[in-house]
Amino acid sequence: MNQQSTAQNNRLSENRRRSLQTMANRLRKHSLVSTSEAASGHPTSCCSCAEVVATLFFNHLRYEVANPSNPYNDRFVLSKGHAAPILWAVWAEAGAFPTEKLLTLRKIDSELEGHPTFRSPYSGAATGSLGQGLSIGLGMAFAARLDKTGARVFVLLGDGEIAEGSVWEAAALASYYKLDNLVAIVDVNRLGQSQATMYGHDLSSYQARFEANGWRVIAVDGHNIGAVDEALAAATAQSGVPTAILAKTLKGKGVSFLEDQNGWHGKPLKKGEELDKALAELGNNFELAEPLTVKAPKATGSLRKPTAKLSTPPEYPLGSQVATREAYGTALKKLGQNSQDVVALDGDCKNSTYSERFMKEFPDRFVECFIAEQDMVGTAVGLGTLGKIPFASTFACFLSRAYDFIRMAGIGKANLKLCGSHAGVSIGEDGPSQMGVEDLAMMRPIAGSAVLYPSDGVSAERLVELAAQNHGIVYIRTTRPKTPVLYGPDEKFELGGCKVIRSSGEDKATVVGAGITLHEAVKAADQLAKEGIKIRVVDLYSVKPLDVDTLRKAVRETGAIVTVEDHYPEGGIGDAVFASLAGEPGKFRKLAVNGIARSGKPEELLEYAGINARHIVAAVKELMQK
Amino acid sequence: MNQQSTAQNNRLSENRRRSLQTMANRLRKHSLVSTSEAASGHPTSCCSCAEVVATLFFNHLRYEVANPSNPYNDRFVLSKGHAAPILWAVWAEAGAFPTEKLLTLRKIDSELEGHPTFRSPYSGAATGSLGQGLSIGLGMAFAARLDKTGARVFVLLGDGEIAEGSVWEAAALASYYKLDNLVAIVDVNRLGQSQATMYGHDLSSYQARFEANGWRVIAVDGHNIGAVDEALAAATAQSGVPTAILAKTLKGKGVSFLEDQNGWHGKPLKKGEELDKALAELGNNFELAEPLTVKAPKATGSLRKPTAKLSTPPEYPLGSQVATREAYGTALKKLGQNSQDVVALDGDCKNSTYSERFMKEFPDRFVECFIAEQDMVGTAVGLGTLGKIPFASTFACFLSRAYDFIRMAGIGKANLKLCGSHAGVSIGEDGPSQMGVEDLAMMRPIAGSAVLYPSDGVSAERLVELAAQNHGIVYIRTTRPKTPVLYGPDEKFELGGCKVIRSSGEDKATVVGAGITLHEAVKAADQLAKEGIKIRVVDLYSVKPLDVDTLRKAVRETGAIVTVEDHYPEGGIGDAVFASLAGEPGKFRKLAVNGIARSGKPEELLEYAGINARHIVAAVKELMQK
Repeated sequence: MNQQSTAQNNRLSENRRRSLQTMANRLRKHSLVSTSEAASGHPTSCCSCAEVVATLFFNHLRYEVANPSNPYNDRFVLSKGHAAPILWAVWAEAGAFPTEKLLTLRKIDSELEGHPTFRSPYSGAATGSLGQGLSIGLGMAFAARLDKTGARVFVLLGDGEIAEGSVWEAAALASYYKLDNLVAIVDVNRLGQSQATMYGHDLSSYQARFEANGWRVIAVDGHNIGAVDEALAAATAQSGVPTAILAKTLKGKGVSFLEDQNGWHGKPLKKGEELDKALAELGNNFELAEPLTVKAPKATGSLRKPTAKLSTPPEYPLGSQVATREAYGTALKKLGQNSQDVVALDGDCKNSTYSERFMKEFPDRFVECFIAEQDMVGTAVGLGTLGKIPFASTFACFLSRAYDFIRMAGIGKANLKLCGSHAGVSIGEDGPSQMGVEDLAMMRPIAGSAVLYPSDGVSAERLVELAAQNHGIVYIRTTRPKTPVLYGPDEKFELGGCKVIRSSGEDKATVVGAGITLHEAVKAADQLAKEGIKIRVVDLYSVKPLDVDTLRKAVRETGAIVTVEDHYPEGGIGDAVFASLAGEPGKFRKLAVNGIARSGKPEELLEYAGINARHIVAAVKELMQK
Repeated sequence: MNQQSTAQNNRLSENRRRSLQTMANRLRKHSLVSTSEAASGHPTSCCSCAEVVATLFFNHLRYEVANPSNPYNDRFVLSKGHAAPILWAVWAEAGAFPTEKLLTLRKIDSELEGHPTFRSPYSGAATGSLGQGLSIGLGMAFAARLDKTGARVFVLLGDGEIAEGSVWEAAALASYYKLDNLVAIVDVNRLGQSQATMYGHDLSSYQARFEANGWRVIAVDGHNIGAVDEALAAATAQSGVPTAILAKTLKGKGVSFLEDQNGWHGKPLKKGEELDKALAELGNNFELAEPLTVKAPKATGSLRKPTAKLSTPPEYPLGSQVATREAYGTALKKLGQNSQDVVALDGDCKNSTYSERFMKEFPDRFVECFIAEQDMVGTAVGLGTLGKIPFASTFACFLSRAYDFIRMAGIGKANLKLCGSHAGVSIGEDGPSQMGVEDLAMMRPIAGSAVLYPSDGVSAERLVELAAQNHGIVYIRTTRPKTPVLYGPDEKFELGGCKVIRSSGEDKATVVGAGITLHEAVKAADQLAKEGIKIRVVDLYSVKPLDVDTLRKAVRETGAIVTVEDHYPEGGIGDAVFASLAGEPGKFRKLAVNGIARSGKPEELLEYAGINARHIVAAVKELMQK
């Protein structure tokens, strides 16, 4: 079973092999010194992969070092992000920046952070939450294949992170899509943060898992330059399936008192005697027997900013019934018609989210991720990195599965569009497990995110278009039931806007809603009007950013605000609106889903949750009497 | 490789086999009729597993039907929660409630919901977000082993949900802990929601995966009662490893126009001709050749309400330096000393979260979950179901990995304690990927949750004790750096409380903080006092529930509120406090982590994020001049 290679390598001259070994020791030295200088970091996790990184970068990678945005570059993703010191070290040795800069590691004015972030163009991907790199690499490999750049993607994982199920989601999908331009390298150094990993140095255990997922597996001694080189050569000879290289290594390799020792995770050596002793063991010959440079890719270029617009304006008669989830699918298709940059992903819900409308027209640009939301988001991030505009959709509640990936996408400043369908209790009979009632709370804190919530077909299409046109993370919340069309085809929408859809000089209160509750607010306005009570109604289609000016004007002019949302009371529309108006005198009432919902008819559940027209009417009247 | 059993079964008499087959058809009939009556639901997903469910319940399960809380009962978890109609059907046939009740499926006044929730004592676990059942079952199996009840745990999964990585996290851990009282049954019916699954009917593919994870695998024709019975008999003959039964089935089995057909997921038959046609195919003989009942377990009993208190009060001199994360570990150990009910789990961070203090004293009650947070939370839910008080800890940011599990724990009304350490930018050099700055936003919306945030060692220990004593989901947020002890050993804390730690009759503003920022607020108060400006300082140790009365009194008496939190601006302390005070006139200012943080020293980052004493002083002065 075990294909561990011990054969003498025939590909490398002795000079080259020695140079690569010297480079590995240079990388070790940089990692030890920079972490000691920072007085924090993970030097032992760098030492274990020094031969792998040196051999990969200087004998296999094809990359225009001065131009990280060249789409023909191979990609390197450091999934074990805590080994960042060796990532920065190898890029410095490759000429990306002076090696002196390595001493700024983890300092507040340096882009050489403790884990890779958006701040360095050489990060590859923001990592540091383990188990995400392979999904991102998968997305990159998919994009490279779409664009026929010939770029390969190398993902370096730790053995500890293999415990994350997301790794196996990615492994399964990469094999399903036969991405033979994707290479995973697992640095099996046996030790996690707090103890040995589940399988220690048992490579056969990892091998069985990858093979069961349809991967080719090559197991090697990760400190044998020749063996690593052969494995990389084999892995990049495309075979129709992705390849995993299992590198058996020692944590802390190269320094006797660190090697294979527990208790040294995330601990730098003390400057002075401790560091000096370690460096002495690395020797003092760091001259390369022959110069090492990173190979150039086959061509040069630069990623351009992707964009897209609807091929035709929304076409819905006013008052006609259309579900915003359906309009999402239509808009996606229209974007796809106008732009090759748009790609779509789904998690086996495409017939519910309506992303299937895109898939049917552009099957090659659609990634069916099956029921694996983490991998779906990671793959989307990878696609975005290579210039695609990825739209990933599933039920709003199931995006919670990928929250850590979304959080990390924020730290990577990814271009990522997420659509959560089936928001709220209005989905009806399926019950609470299928209801997204915490998605606004989840998406609002993501750094730089926009949170959009259409209420009709027209706004849904336009907000999807806005999402495509604004770089960054945009969340679109769609609704299951059909709702009446409110806007004409030329209505304008913008990030940070809202629409006042009912108003008069005599408004006694303002009701702020979105999605299903906006229509309940309209019904409430109609009922109140019959009783001679006029209210203002605001369509809060942009939950983040928020149109605070219009909201402040509303409370000042009407004296009362009722927010109504198909979402739990915490972190959603009510919190956002009320917090933005803190200190404004007035009467405020938040209507939201109080407690766990249940199965029932949509209209019964709007009543049960306290967010339908009847509750809005009661709230307005109650506030008027205060 | 494939051990698919086609042998004639010798365990069952022909009468018994025929009875079980008839029971399977009864379950089909109930599932078809109840979903048609509800006009929604997933009958075809029930039909595929009818033989499996009938054979399991009436020939293997040991369960005191009238007493679901008997700890000696075997457990059944329907991981493919959308097959709820057959779950309710089999419990009705087992005598749990009248079969007439099945017609209330999905109606608003029925506990027979679209997917299993806390409302029925026969749910086993709240499911419906796929891929969670095996982790919950793992926790149950672990609890049963701890308590030596002899209970076995059966988890029925769909093949589509096998794509969720969390399934493989659970598979790996169950094998690591040699839980041979755990049986997974995969209903391989080939079809997902929107298309065929990744592997269709290729059982060998699933077999390789489970075997690679150390499971024993038995592949059978899932419609052959005899084969299913043999497989269950083999699976429950404990072998030192968990067992997976792969049941090859047809979606919609038993109704010719549904069988193995795409496009029938989640679609009921129309009452009238369509349903009648299907029922006609099931025949009209539903008489059992011999009576079928569920076997009794070896003993009876009732789960008692678990509880725990600290074995000794907190012992820290006022002003001494202790990290709340460290106090968490100490408190956990003290709870363990007083109660066998307390168990702890960690995700390879136990030396950072300090849960290792518990592990060292109670290794048998500690579950090392490795780097697999989803499975950690699912396992904790399972432990809680069987009467344990599970405390699961990791970095706050990595709990985001398990958000869907936490959401579902809410729907299950689980008894679950979560500790997120390393909150906020104050962790320092590791950088943003390791900083929990959206955890409050994530935890506040969870139904019925409490969100606690200690600022010193004493409150940390007491809040851990409160968490143990209050059934439900309690989140405890701890801080990495040491902070001074503020309270004496007998200080009282309560859910929904807060502490006014500085106040006078001349306060010009109130600063509300918790954790690291509370100490910045104290510093700010000291600085301002030197300038003759007095302020009130509130320790908001209970973020949810919130002590609105004290906060309202503060704004009314001091005229200004500054919230300061080591968290993003959305969904955290500022939003919670401001929303609760909506309409109160006054001056309000929210200080929070604006934008993506970075690597740096903790004190540099508090400055960079705008949440240190200097910023608080400036905010207070600015508000005073307004």
